[in-house]
Amino acid sequence: METLKVIKIGGNIIDDEQALQLFLKQFADLQSPKVLVHGGGKLASRFAKKLGVEVKMMNGRRITNAETLEVITMVYAGKINKSIVSRLQAHQCNSVGFTGADGNSIVSVRRPVEDIDFGYVGDITRVNTDVLAILLNNAITPVLCAITHDEQGQLLNTNADTIAAEIAIAMSSHLKTELYYCFEKSGVLSDVNDENSVIEHIDSATYKSLLESKVISDGMLPKLTNSFHAVSNKVANVYLGTPEMLFTNNSKFTTIQL
Amino acid sequence: METLKVIKIGGNIIDDEQALQLFLKQFADLQSPKVLVHGGGKLASRFAKKLGVEVKMMNGRRITNAETLEVITMVYAGKINKSIVSRLQAHQCNSVGFTGADGNSIVSVRRPVEDIDFGYVGDITRVNTDVLAILLNNAITPVLCAITHDEQGQLLNTNADTIAAEIAIAMSSHLKTELYYCFEKSGVLSDVNDENSVIEHIDSATYKSLLESKVISDGMLPKLTNSFHAVSNKVANVYLGTPEMLFTNNSKFTTIQL
Repeated sequence: METLKVIKIGGNIIDDEQALQLFLKQFADLQSPKVLVHGGGKLASRFAKKLGVEVKMMNGRRITNAETLEVITMVYAGKINKSIVSRLQAHQCNSVGFTGADGNSIVSVRRPVEDIDFGYVGDITRVNTDVLAILLNNAITPVLCAITHDEQGQLLNTNADTIAAEIAIAMSSHLKTELYYCFEKSGVLSDVNDENSVIEHIDSATYKSLLESKVISDGMLPKLTNSFHAVSNKVANVYLGTPEMLFTNNSKFTTIQL
Repeated sequence: METLKVIKIGGNIIDDEQALQLFLKQFADLQSPKVLVHGGGKLASRFAKKLGVEVKMMNGRRITNAETLEVITMVYAGKINKSIVSRLQAHQCNSVGFTGADGNSIVSVRRPVEDIDFGYVGDITRVNTDVLAILLNNAITPVLCAITHDEQGQLLNTNADTIAAEIAIAMSSHLKTELYYCFEKSGVLSDVNDENSVIEHIDSATYKSLLESKVISDGMLPKLTNSFHAVSNKVANVYLGTPEMLFTNNSKFTTIQL
């Protein structure tokens, strides 16, 4: 079997109708087996506001109370996920939308309360690849949104970057797997304001020195942590950049290797 | 393989937290292969109101404009469907939530405008059982909500009773299939105000005479039309009644046969 591509798309694509349409057409045409992972932050905040649900942030992170979880479930698993699936079908890419509850595919525990109670936020404890593997073996593309569950009937909000990394790690025991983080930058930049400053290769040694020199922006740090977690657990390669890295040969991006 | 049960639950179960919890526990324990179909009307209307989306009815039927479809997609495919799937997982019933777009399982066309434009309402043209059959063969229960798609990227609102009938018909070509309509009455009543007036068996001849005598309530007519459509197309039996008909031996219900 070919290499599996686990592809995570960020809010800049989800929130831009034209960008999303183009991405889905190109994604559908990718010939390798593939998994798509998405969040959808801005849209969730917009609906929360419309419904009069207060969006509480703490250190830049969303506090997920019961009402917020309800909005997230409706927007991520309903509106965004089903819009993506129906449009992939229009491009002849047979797909099935997933939360971590579907097929019991991603199990998490509610994050323990230490200084902050993040609410209904789940930390992943186990990925069951059974159903995902069955679908992939039948040329069907799973589309996962950023929701997991605790096997006790509770859905939990979980970071989409982390979901993508854990899915890639779990699938690596079946077949060669690559992880792609698609976002608005051309990869990891040495100067956050200069798109030409892409660091094309990062290995453990350069990662360490980048951390020490504090070159990496705060927003990029979790992605790099997830990336090294993935390559340290049998994921073949991790790539960070704009979606063009998947579809053209002339874009710059960052490759992460051990 | 055993008999497949396609089970449709009505708004009276969806809208009653305690009834839903009990139903899902009993449903999870059913040993035969099974498919669950649900709508969720009242909850959708509640969220539409909260979001300031006007609910337009015409001859007792909902007009589905773009905003209404958005609400329906969020409530049916997001909130209700994922709540059901996560709770079935808690009862060790491995399930995957579906719209008709997922796995390209239910294809429809937007209803042509004659006297009334119903908006984004889909009439089913084809059921693809491929993905549903793959899941059932792996002991996984599909949970379908009342949304289909047109294969051109458009989701469409479709009556859940009709979805259940069409799924049952399509699955009948794979294995013996029974259809259950679970709702608030103990079946088809000869006196709508008397729960003891259940008509226990209806065949084509009694159906015709019931129609002529105008005994059947308006709300029951579409269910009976769907039921006879199903049994006329290889579905083994159709049952109408409260969920108890599935789980106990002492409840009354209506059995439909040709």
